Amino acid sequence: MIERIAILGTGLLGTSAGLALRAAGFRGTITGWNRSPDQAQLALSMGALDQLAIDALQASRESELVLLAVPVFATIDSMEKLAGVLSADQLVTDVGSTKVQICEAAARLYNRPGRAAFLPGHPMAGKERGGAALADAELFRGAVWLFTDDPDAKRSAHGEALVSEWREWVSKFGSKAIDLDPARHDALVGWVSHLPQFVATALSALLEDEVGDAPELKDVGGRGLREMTRLGASPYSMWRDIAMTNTESIQAALHALEQRLAHVRENLRTPELRDEFEQANRFRRE
Amino acid sequence: MIERIAILGTGLLGTSAGLALRAAGFRGTITGWNRSPDQAQLALSMGALDQLAIDALQASRESELVLLAVPVFATIDSMEKLAGVLSADQLVTDVGSTKVQICEAAARLYNRPGRAAFLPGHPMAGKERGGAALADAELFRGAVWLFTDDPDAKRSAHGEALVSEWREWVSKFGSKAIDLDPARHDALVGWVSHLPQFVATALSALLEDEVGDAPELKDVGGRGLREMTRLGASPYSMWRDIAMTNTESIQAALHALEQRLAHVRENLRTPELRDEFEQANRFRRE
Repeated sequence: MIERIAILGTGLLGTSAGLALRAAGFRGTITGWNRSPDQAQLALSMGALDQLAIDALQASRESELVLLAVPVFATIDSMEKLAGVLSADQLVTDVGSTKVQICEAAARLYNRPGRAAFLPGHPMAGKERGGAALADAELFRGAVWLFTDDPDAKRSAHGEALVSEWREWVSKFGSKAIDLDPARHDALVGWVSHLPQFVATALSALLEDEVGDAPELKDVGGRGLREMTRLGASPYSMWRDIAMTNTESIQAALHALEQRLAHVRENLRTPELRDEFEQANRFRRE
Repeated sequence: MIERIAILGTGLLGTSAGLALRAAGFRGTITGWNRSPDQAQLALSMGALDQLAIDALQASRESELVLLAVPVFATIDSMEKLAGVLSADQLVTDVGSTKVQICEAAARLYNRPGRAAFLPGHPMAGKERGGAALADAELFRGAVWLFTDDPDAKRSAHGEALVSEWREWVSKFGSKAIDLDPARHDALVGWVSHLPQFVATALSALLEDEVGDAPELKDVGGRGLREMTRLGASPYSMWRDIAMTNTESIQAALHALEQRLAHVRENLRTPELRDEFEQANRFRRE
């Protein structure tokens, strides 16, 4: 039974997880830590935390579950620091956006006799801007929570029980769990999450160049334009590690879309355009 | 004063215009015609029309205002048929998505002594699917309604009064009028309306190829993916004439985006990516 949780990283996802735990009936103690203390203070004042940690390692040592809710490289850094100080009866889980490198670190540092358990997770929920202020107990409701666990993990019975219990909490948040191999995960999110983001960024940047000097004309595009550029507000800081750790998948997806756009461009006046619309319609069929 | 309006084309826009006229207090008679009689019947049953026209030309002849709410080529066809049967005290206006060819037809056939008046219009409102069933009296509220009128139009005083009155109705629908030159219109909507549509179509078609066989994985993308592909549901029939009549603008916009995506792809691991995100952020600044 999990009674003490440490949340390392109290931005949008970490703070939302604290709020979701409370909303789902978690009665234990939630301790939070954040690199910028003001975000941790905000999460505390929002009720996502019971207390602030002075020291992240100390708070982790005193918890059954450590939730890492920081960007991918910071997740791997924390995994390395925590591996040496946690016991086999503790679980670390994360919300990192790419999973191959995190799972490599997990196989090297966790999930073996004498080591803490690690469960790699990735909730497909977020907003175009981060930060505790936007956190929401309902953020994960209806969203998919991907897990990329290692079938060869060698965990203690207690570690396995903690994994099961965390999966139950995720289910109580209203999320639907899907289990994937880490490589398949990174390829898939390259298509359905990273490609849409980089397209929105490129489209928004291009339109800023073309019509940015006439702000009244942005209204002309209406709802379609607003939706197609909403993710353009996402900051680089949220995407740097993703671009660095899923480079090949994103490159392949972007290249495929470039070719697809060229095909559309070359066929604006031919029957091929009908085929392209019909294939797109299939993706959006009910 | 406009007492009789003929709406030719009772799809989404034509039917919404009828409903918006009623909601804004229009007390005259609205006669509707549609190529498929069932759509006209539906518009009638929704209260957008008072009566159905047996013959589109006859109904137009008996109205002060004719609203053409059909695709671009059908708009030009109707303009040619109507020009010979209308008088200088009648106004034709339209909702066509591209304006250069329509304005060329207007200069040739309307807005000169003895001919009917023509006011080219384009409400930036719509949905990813057409049809009377989705019509809404509030469709135009908050939307921009573009006009691309000819400063050299030679209209009767009565024709000018009808133009002013139609502009007032548009304002009563809750739309914000913006006046543009037709060439500037087509270039602008190429960027802010047509480019987002063709990107959504290409992205949706590509994703159907890549993950369409695993429908449960579409959920993984969440809100971002849904928004970036919503326009993928748009049918070819709504976009064929646009692709045919604004080809060069759309080609230029697509080509520019292909280059931008290649730039992102080549810089996923360089500081250039930060610049691209920051430029995109500027487009979405409040």
